[in-house]
Amino acid sequence: MPSPVDPVALTAALVRCPSVTPEEGGALVLLEGLLSGAGFDCTRVDRNGVPNLFARWGRRGANRSFGFNGHTDVVPVGDAAAWTHDPFGAEIEGGYLWGRGATDMKSGVAAFAAAAVDFVRETPPDGAVILTITGDEEGASVDGTQAILDWMAAEGEAMAVCLVGEPTSPERLGEMMKIGRRGSLTAHVTARGVQGHSAYPHRAKNPVAALCRLMDRLDTHVLDEGSEHFDASTLAITTVDTGNPATNVIPALCRGTVNIRFNDLHSGQSLSDWLAAEAAKVQAETGVEITLKVVVSGDSFLTPPGSFSDLIADAVEAETGIRPVPSTSGGTSDARFVKNHCPVVEFGLVGKTMHAVDERVEVAQIVALKAIYGRVLRDYFA
Amino acid sequence: MPSPVDPVALTAALVRCPSVTPEEGGALVLLEGLLSGAGFDCTRVDRNGVPNLFARWGRRGANRSFGFNGHTDVVPVGDAAAWTHDPFGAEIEGGYLWGRGATDMKSGVAAFAAAAVDFVRETPPDGAVILTITGDEEGASVDGTQAILDWMAAEGEAMAVCLVGEPTSPERLGEMMKIGRRGSLTAHVTARGVQGHSAYPHRAKNPVAALCRLMDRLDTHVLDEGSEHFDASTLAITTVDTGNPATNVIPALCRGTVNIRFNDLHSGQSLSDWLAAEAAKVQAETGVEITLKVVVSGDSFLTPPGSFSDLIADAVEAETGIRPVPSTSGGTSDARFVKNHCPVVEFGLVGKTMHAVDERVEVAQIVALKAIYGRVLRDYFA
Ligand SMILES: [Zn+2]
Ligand SMILES: [Zn+2]
Repeated sequence: MPSPVDPVALTAALVRCPSVTPEEGGALVLLEGLLSGAGFDCTRVDRNGVPNLFARWGRRGANRSFGFNGHTDVVPVGDAAAWTHDPFGAEIEGGYLWGRGATDMKSGVAAFAAAAVDFVRETPPDGAVILTITGDEEGASVDGTQAILDWMAAEGEAMAVCLVGEPTSPERLGEMMKIGRRGSLTAHVTARGVQGHSAYPHRAKNPVAALCRLMDRLDTHVLDEGSEHFDASTLAITTVDTGNPATNVIPALCRGTVNIRFNDLHSGQSLSDWLAAEAAKVQAETGVEITLKVVVSGDSFLTPPGSFSDLIADAVEAETGIRPVPSTSGGTSDARFVKNHCPVVEFGLVGKTMHAVDERVEVAQIVALKAIYGRVLRDYFA
Repeated sequence: MPSPVDPVALTAALVRCPSVTPEEGGALVLLEGLLSGAGFDCTRVDRNGVPNLFARWGRRGANRSFGFNGHTDVVPVGDAAAWTHDPFGAEIEGGYLWGRGATDMKSGVAAFAAAAVDFVRETPPDGAVILTITGDEEGASVDGTQAILDWMAAEGEAMAVCLVGEPTSPERLGEMMKIGRRGSLTAHVTARGVQGHSAYPHRAKNPVAALCRLMDRLDTHVLDEGSEHFDASTLAITTVDTGNPATNVIPALCRGTVNIRFNDLHSGQSLSDWLAAEAAKVQAETGVEITLKVVVSGDSFLTPPGSFSDLIADAVEAETGIRPVPSTSGGTSDARFVKNHCPVVEFGLVGKTMHAVDERVEVAQIVALKAIYGRVLRDYFA
């Protein structure tokens, strides 16, 4: 019997792969080597230059098939000079493993891969264990997890359930899992007025004033107070830009952008309608033409609490003593693609340093996460 | 006897000089050539790189000395693609001469220069005719007309009265002259918040939202309803800028600018205090730090109706059949510097397209304006 896979060493090896989106950086090649050696059927499902890996242990089309989804790509280093450790060095110091992707989410991928290899070697299940790992979750996400799912559908491959290994806990490992996500929408607003001299504002139509009015109304509007499984929807103005250096000129054009994260009380369509109505009101009041380009990244979704989320919660509680709250908070993730195919729950590490300078993970938590994932697999196939 | 100076050809020649503030662009050189040739003593009174021209026909210190003030600099072209004619082409089409500065105020300078040259040649007066022409009226105006006036004081040069040739009529040539101006103030506003992820707006402090709120409040506030000689004060937001391309990031910083034109019911100080109070309210509501840099270009001023304004009104009425209303409306002008030295009245063309795309002037009005200015000179020295 081979010795158990060390999830810390595996995390470190992955962090040393410079897999900034969309670079493969050696990360998927490394995983494929490990999984193939343990009897997984591995297939690279690259699409439009985006690297993706599909790996299955057991029979295609097995009734009981446990799926895992994760990503090996990472966001850019940012201000490299501000890091106290090499972002791709995977140094271990002070109980932490330091580097870009340490929490988001090379440790999650490593913990599951290690748990899965140990599991199929020690207690070969009557079913399948499937890993879907993409190299583009942080980027456009168009040819990442979606490409693997498309390929699986064409090949007759399927997961009965899927665990996504993104960081989910705000402060302490175990306190939160995610059973859905809010939707996300971005509206690009253009206000076209009539240029003029700032001393004669009644002869011009001021697009900056109109856009500020619209933005303030959108910002102060309460979308909702939350719903049974969701936090309140939020709206954030991310930019307003004019580029007029002349203080005696009222410009003709002003642009702004708004990002909305919304729960199941709204849809991309209902919010687009609301935005259009608010814009039309300001247009009618000011005479400034206001146009919207709305991009809906995804509607909200939910895997209602049930047997799959109970399985995860039980395993987390058994290993950590904490029962995770089922949450739908936070940013978008690839669970939004998986949910079209099977129940999906997300559980992973504390995400505090994700995307930040000096991203790091407690070494002990990588070990704990592997134990949780191992228990989930044993319980699922028990 | 040389033939009369063609004010249309002179306007066209000036429009072809690309004298966007603070570029001289050849405009003052052109005027100096014309005026020197007609016997004017010309002196370039440049200061800190700003080009200015002083020209006097007749004796220094003459008792009767008629002054004219104008500028050859122009505001930037703006959206060049939106122009239907070359902004520096001075094309004549449909009865109009098209180009940046066509109304503000190369035509005014050309009409007076043409009238003055003809006048001193045909009926040399017992006194002096003085032109003070600056290349920086649209910009900071610190080293423009003020520099000429400083130089004149030092040299013992003086104007007994001064006519400023800025556009003054809203719709029809002759309907309005200006005997004072509102004050002008520009406030540069900086909002500093806390950067964050747009999915978690409660963890950030959004400076864009705060600035939009402040701007909308300033824009909708009614400053006053006007006073005996003055129109209502006005406020225009000229720009709001953030420069944040990331739709998932709430930025830390946003900047904006507001321009206020105010009457004798306010002062630069009272308005600065009001702006600071409004900013403090929004800061208290949002937690976003808002700071102001206020620049007061000038308080309001007035040359009360009297013999000089009557002289102008009589000449305008004789030439156009319309008696001009004495007004204090509109933007600031260099009359705010001249008023410290002598009675000052402004009279010029219809200003409708000034600072706008497709700025243009009716060719017939340039000719009419020269006739008015010529009559003013004859009447003054009669
Ligand atoms: Zn992630
Ligand atoms: Zn002007």
